[in-house]
Amino acid sequence: MRLATIRTAGLTRAVRVDPGADAAIEIDGAGDLGELLSDPDWRARAAGASGRVHTLSALASTDYAPVVVRPGKIVCVGLNYREHILEMGRELPTHPTLFAKYAEALIGAGDDILIPREAADTVDWEGELAVVVGRPLRHASTAQAAEAIAGFTVMNDVTVRAYQYRTTQWLQGKTFESSTPLGPVLVTADELPARAHVSTTVGETRRQHASIDDLVFSPADLLSYISRIVTLRPGDVVATGTPGGVGHASEPPEHLADGERVTVTVDGIGSVSNRLRILDVGGI
Amino acid sequence: MRLATIRTAGLTRAVRVDPGADAAIEIDGAGDLGELLSDPDWRARAAGASGRVHTLSALASTDYAPVVVRPGKIVCVGLNYREHILEMGRELPTHPTLFAKYAEALIGAGDDILIPREAADTVDWEGELAVVVGRPLRHASTAQAAEAIAGFTVMNDVTVRAYQYRTTQWLQGKTFESSTPLGPVLVTADELPARAHVSTTVGETRRQHASIDDLVFSPADLLSYISRIVTLRPGDVVATGTPGGVGHASEPPEHLADGERVTVTVDGIGSVSNRLRILDVGGI
Repeated sequence: MRLATIRTAGLTRAVRVDPGADAAIEIDGAGDLGELLSDPDWRARAAGASGRVHTLSALASTDYAPVVVRPGKIVCVGLNYREHILEMGRELPTHPTLFAKYAEALIGAGDDILIPREAADTVDWEGELAVVVGRPLRHASTAQAAEAIAGFTVMNDVTVRAYQYRTTQWLQGKTFESSTPLGPVLVTADELPARAHVSTTVGETRRQHASIDDLVFSPADLLSYISRIVTLRPGDVVATGTPGGVGHASEPPEHLADGERVTVTVDGIGSVSNRLRILDVGGI
Repeated sequence: MRLATIRTAGLTRAVRVDPGADAAIEIDGAGDLGELLSDPDWRARAAGASGRVHTLSALASTDYAPVVVRPGKIVCVGLNYREHILEMGRELPTHPTLFAKYAEALIGAGDDILIPREAADTVDWEGELAVVVGRPLRHASTAQAAEAIAGFTVMNDVTVRAYQYRTTQWLQGKTFESSTPLGPVLVTADELPARAHVSTTVGETRRQHASIDDLVFSPADLLSYISRIVTLRPGDVVATGTPGGVGHASEPPEHLADGERVTVTVDGIGSVSNRLRILDVGGI
């Protein structure tokens, strides 16, 4: 099953996406997938969606909101692709590196990435597979965690490197408002190919390409680990980390230019494709 | 004005606290201070509180919920006391170190700090002044930020050191569920003494004691800085950092023991006082 949150008539609505029927069908009473997932019967409600039908092919890329508009938590993971870690001469980590992003960072699959001019020189891409939590999870085994996954989506963990490395803590480079596409759809766990690839293209050039079976900590490993620290709840998002090929690792480092488009694709899910737009900002 | 969120009859309620009258008066229609602060007229509503009256002196310490029960964002600051930085031989930072904590970490002023046994060996204290945001703030000057402060409260940024330093990113040591007292009251900005001291006592021993006029980045500086990255909203919490005297910096390092009590006081606000309780946990 493929689900999304779309923008229609000034609101957001949770929909079930049926590519074969070229249809996105509104799920009654759910303003976004976060709201839907908070209902333990979400699968049945999505399967039985009977609301307004949108023609899928007629939806603009900007009609997609973040799959979860305002997650209670966004947990991101660093250093999680085996080949990339080894090629950098590092040892495989024994514990995942976790950091946060605030919900205000999220944008839809086709929205512009908005960065203030003072931070616009070092904007970089990080294509990632993201997991959306489908039921409350606390002190969970890996098997329990696997069953709590609602599905998968695509994140570009857009990062302002100068702010990421201003201090030891990455948060400020990771949570610029309206910087982080999440979408376009959530694909339920049963539909994700086991060796799906994450690919990132900047302009016409492919910059990242790796299989998710190279993850050191699998989605279920990560949810289990996090759940021993804090309860994961429906709609929470866990981004599983990015493979090699970010602009910062080039010699010399490369970054996104104003107006440049970056596209992240995960096989079996789809793409987020976004242009960087630099903002000249004043006060509030 | 002094405001709090109390637990009564299985719910939380925002109250105005009037120590002179030994009264905590419910503010109509506000389930907690986060909800109250989302109303631009919150000051008038709090001043005109006319709901049920509780006898202040009869409230148990566990009747206090976190002043904001579920902040949209909790932004914490590291390395922000001048004397402590200099005595460690470091240079004063040019930018604040920011990291996050999730809302599930919060507990009330008298609640137990709950840590799972697997993480219980390195639990440490960090007494802090915390700021609560009173109006939306984006790309704000320091002066604008100062006006957007609803008030101040006390946080103990309880930290599991072994998890904080497992990786380069501190989040996992900072966001254990039910670890972080925030309260007991929010004191509006006009009532905070300019040289209020932050003090932390473990058992009978004072371990931290510093004046908030030693902060490198003032509360308004911090809000202005953060607002250039992401919109701050009513009820968001910014913890301003801890002074010297944490257990981790002792030789050898010291940590809280099961059942031990730690109290953080800020002059003019009050105290959070909490016992560490180690949890034996199974699955969900």
